[in-house]
Amino acid sequence: MSLVVQKFGGTSLADAERIRSVADHVARTRRQGFEVVVVVSAMGRETDELLHLAAQVSDVQPGRELDMLITAGERKAMALLCMALAELDCPSSSFTGSQAGLITDTLHTRAKILEVRSERLRQALESGRVPVVGGAQGVSSDRDVTFLGRGGSDTTAVALAHALGADVCELYTDVSGVFTADPRIEPSARKLRELSFEEMLEMSASGCPKPETRSVEFARNHAVPLHVRSSFTWEPGTWVVSAEEAEKRRAEESSMEQAIISAVVHDTSEAKVTVTHVPDRPGIAARLFRSLADEHVNVGMIEQNVSIGGTTDISFTVPKAFLDVSLQVCRSHAEEIGANDVLADPDVANVSLIGAGMKTHPGIAATMFETLADEAINIEMISTSPIRISCVVHSDDVERAVQSLHAAFGL
Amino acid sequence: MSLVVQKFGGTSLADAERIRSVADHVARTRRQGFEVVVVVSAMGRETDELLHLAAQVSDVQPGRELDMLITAGERKAMALLCMALAELDCPSSSFTGSQAGLITDTLHTRAKILEVRSERLRQALESGRVPVVGGAQGVSSDRDVTFLGRGGSDTTAVALAHALGADVCELYTDVSGVFTADPRIEPSARKLRELSFEEMLEMSASGCPKPETRSVEFARNHAVPLHVRSSFTWEPGTWVVSAEEAEKRRAEESSMEQAIISAVVHDTSEAKVTVTHVPDRPGIAARLFRSLADEHVNVGMIEQNVSIGGTTDISFTVPKAFLDVSLQVCRSHAEEIGANDVLADPDVANVSLIGAGMKTHPGIAATMFETLADEAINIEMISTSPIRISCVVHSDDVERAVQSLHAAFGL
Repeated sequence: MSLVVQKFGGTSLADAERIRSVADHVARTRRQGFEVVVVVSAMGRETDELLHLAAQVSDVQPGRELDMLITAGERKAMALLCMALAELDCPSSSFTGSQAGLITDTLHTRAKILEVRSERLRQALESGRVPVVGGAQGVSSDRDVTFLGRGGSDTTAVALAHALGADVCELYTDVSGVFTADPRIEPSARKLRELSFEEMLEMSASGCPKPETRSVEFARNHAVPLHVRSSFTWEPGTWVVSAEEAEKRRAEESSMEQAIISAVVHDTSEAKVTVTHVPDRPGIAARLFRSLADEHVNVGMIEQNVSIGGTTDISFTVPKAFLDVSLQVCRSHAEEIGANDVLADPDVANVSLIGAGMKTHPGIAATMFETLADEAINIEMISTSPIRISCVVHSDDVERAVQSLHAAFGL
Repeated sequence: MSLVVQKFGGTSLADAERIRSVADHVARTRRQGFEVVVVVSAMGRETDELLHLAAQVSDVQPGRELDMLITAGERKAMALLCMALAELDCPSSSFTGSQAGLITDTLHTRAKILEVRSERLRQALESGRVPVVGGAQGVSSDRDVTFLGRGGSDTTAVALAHALGADVCELYTDVSGVFTADPRIEPSARKLRELSFEEMLEMSASGCPKPETRSVEFARNHAVPLHVRSSFTWEPGTWVVSAEEAEKRRAEESSMEQAIISAVVHDTSEAKVTVTHVPDRPGIAARLFRSLADEHVNVGMIEQNVSIGGTTDISFTVPKAFLDVSLQVCRSHAEEIGANDVLADPDVANVSLIGAGMKTHPGIAATMFETLADEAINIEMISTSPIRISCVVHSDDVERAVQSLHAAFGL
């Protein structure tokens, strides 16, 4: 029998009515002859509400306790979904991350999965039940409850799909798939039928909000086919598969021209930091970025200008929430290493072109730069990968950049 | 070092401010040189809210899922209290029922504790931490999450106090102790300084809402001293101890006269059922009450009238919520056994006198009946134990009954 893992996000489970609607879909999938494992997030905005409550109670929030608090959200959702399934005569059992055998490291609030011991889920499946698993949670080697971090339910779903050998991992969300651009900015954006893991990973890392980057990495590393789709329309969404499979599916859609570029993605969550007149000696940059890493700053794009007169400028992007700590780190280093100044620019945005076809088609970068130049949009930084070109622009220009690129590449 | 178990109910943890206030009290107790283990209920009315949510989602609520849902409430409370303790530099760790080693049977929604494996709590205490345990929850021999039932946090607290050899189990609530009568009905009601386990058990079973009856039973069976007190005033409350210890303490309060009667308790939660003209043959009553037990009806008082002409009337009280099912059971039996009729009276109340001194003082019952007669209150049923006399009266008469008895016995 085919096995499908279905993950439902918070908006898909926001209230009693939506929970019943999800139960109906799960029961229907089962009647169609599939074995189903369900992964749920907390209802609606409950995780935010719990964090708000914690902030009201205390300024000190030990990670172990924060994880205990937050994971209460998924427990509620999974128990309620099982009740709704019971009303539909669909036998099910809820499982915490611990009960589902998700063993993690001990890094609270952002634990990583070490191992999936899936015996209990297999037993439930064998006895004809639908296991409903609380997402984004596990139990550490210290027997403590751990949280995988925001969006971690996607990772739970992919990890279970891999461990159980599922045929597909369906990620249900409030949009009907992955689009060629954000439809709020570009009204003619199209839903993509398929993407390769590599394209999806570049898109997630470049600002596409769903699915979570970590889950795409996991899916790529273990070749778990993903299907990103809507729990509001239930229509087919976007498949994320191996490059080979994506290529094959695209070829089958004979009426469609092969696209070189799959999508335009933008990201306004980062800020730019520039350290000027850094002495151009080996090890200087390494020390700076090690110090940033020590403060858990996830550096995005890095650019180092050509050295002039023995010094160079280093620019990089960081999440806006980490701008202040990044500036502190840079300023303390600037003094030590004799750099001139540390500049911050929070008003930047990142625009990226993603496309597996890019590798074999010259001139993509040139067309991108020309398109932006025609719109009088200044490019502040550039970064590339074999299937992506990203430009940092002023945040005021980001909508025009997305729209003009979407048109220029015929998306 | 002395060890104290402190249990805080929902109203004591209703919001962020109250949680901080509880944390302050726990930290203060610890600074006074006590080891402390804390047990928490869910915040405020959260358990009710979760049950309401479940009712919205589904008419079918498997016990396993209901328990998973409800226990989320205590998890939140315990994590938040640990955060508040962290801010006060009081090291603590939260523990679910499962983590605290509360092993229960598999009877969901009303599980019973089979065993307490307290190693993790002992380790936490030894490392100088305050364990904060989610009340009313455990893990079953099937590795499922179980709920001990409403008010089960009191039982958790007493069970842990016994397992850890605590010197006292403090039950913090929204009243400052156990009173000679309900102060809402009898304004001159006094707080009792001490009670024997047996008296407290009779009071709990006769309608005194706190502490939970089961926890008092457990405390009596294992001689765990209880201290029922308020988390709003923090003043000393009522001690519940062995009969010998209660006697000793009362003797020490030399200025006070030895009370024969400790309190008047009333209960309006039950209804009366009467089956008329039951054939007076052995085994008839047994079959009726077995059938009621099979439907989980907790029968209170039972009275069988003198047999007249080979038939008798059987009256008994049941919780109002079980009146309908009790009537069904009785009616199906009435036909079978040839009884005449089944009558229901929901408008009854139970008034009880409790007092360890009662055993050796004749005339208590007579004074009780005279007092009620003087108030023209009709007695519908009577039941007694060595330290209790209970009368069922019309519910309209209950307040006058409590007031007149409180005065008549000089409470």
